[in-house]
Formats: sequence, structure tokens, C-alpha cells
Amino acid sequence: MPEHEKYQNFITELRRGSLTMMVLGCLKNPHYGYALLQTLQKLDVDIEANTLYPLLRRLETQGLLTSDWNTSESRPRKYYHINQTGEEVLHGLMTEWNRIQHSMDAIYGEERRI
Amino acid sequence: MPEHEKYQNFITELRRGSLTMMVLGCLKNPHYGYALLQTLQKLDVDIEANTLYPLLRRLETQGLLTSDWNTSESRPRKYYHINQTGEEVLHGLMTEWNRIQHSMDAIYGEERRI
Repeated sequence: MPEHEKYQNFITELRRGSLTMMVLGCLKNPHYGYALLQTLQKLDVDIEANTLYPLLRRLETQGLLTSDWNTSESRPRKYYHINQTGEEVLHGLMTEWNRIQHSMDAIYGEERRI
Repeated sequence: MPEHEKYQNFITELRRGSLTMMVLGCLKNPHYGYALLQTLQKLDVDIEANTLYPLLRRLETQGLLTSDWNTSESRPRKYYHINQTGEEVLHGLMTEWNRIQHSMDAIYGEERRI
């Protein structure tokens, strides 16, 4: 890792925007918080509970996610899923992501595909 | 565009991290500010002068860019280029970008390549 004092900030900034997209995408299938954490970690997404759980609450407050309590299991769990507004925002984010990807490819070409 | 009040914030967040990477990548070839703005816009990067110029000054202050005045032209211009520290940070960012890209592909697969 480069020793630059701001290095972690640059990395965090790079991850932050994509994280919302990843969470919205995964929540096409309802998940409770810890299950989503595990799903993301299996996908090699570098995220911890103390980042994910506030993000879920924020996205619900912003109206992109809806949650339901599942009380049929021994322990009640709050399941989140993407709603119609979330789908619309996600569609816009995916369009932008593709655009960023094309610009990035134009700048770095094959170089970054090492 | 979705009508969600925070939509533009999500887009801005998605762009922000990648922008540093794009600027560092382009500055393997020295550019003065306005020329870099044109280069980025040709690459379909959605950026304006009032975002780019402060970013250039910030990246120079943070030690990732070096600038030189070119006074041989009729109008002196400040040319920025990436330096050794910038190259090291950029290498780390590219590694992270590839990782994010892989996670994104795992979540969206072919769907987002419309």
C-alpha cells in the first residue's frame, strides 16, 4: 500500500459510490442485514457491518429500500428489498456506471487489465 | 432521470472517486488546466472547470501532481503532471477499481451491459 497519508481516503472515495449500487442490486433479493453483509463479502466487496447497517437505514429513509419484519423464524429479522423508486435510481446509476467505465477504458485501455 | 430528490447526489458520489483516477491517468501526459478539461470532455467525462481546477490544486497540495510553468508560449501556462507519489497512489486505485469492477460484474453480470 502506498504510504501517502490520504491513500485510504482515496480508496474510500472510490468505493463509496459503487457501494450504493451494489447494495441496491443485491436487494433485488430480500436480505436481512447480516445476510447481505455475507453476500457482499463473498463478492469480495470490502465492507463492514458498521458501514453497511447505517447505509441500509439511510437508503430506506431516502425511500429506495423497503423493509419487512419476518417473524416466522425463531428470531425476528428485518428484511430489506429494493422498491420501485430504488429500481429507477439504480437504473440511472447503472447508466452512469457504464459511462464511467467507458471513459476509464479510454484512458487506461489494456493497461489496467493486468 | 429519476425524480428522486437525492438522485444527483448519488450520481455525484459515483463519479467522484473515479474522477481522481481519470485525472491522474491523463496527467501521465502533462496538461494545463483547460487542455485537460477538453481531454476529459472528449472522453465523455462529465466535468466542469469549477470542479476540475480545484481538484488539480488539491492533488498538487497532496503531493500527487507536480506543476511547471511553461513560459515559452505567448501566454504562460501551468502544466500539471503526475509524479512518483501520484503513480504509486494511482497503481493502488487501479487495483481497487479492478476489484470493484469484478464485484459489480458478479452482481449485475450481463444485465448492465445493455
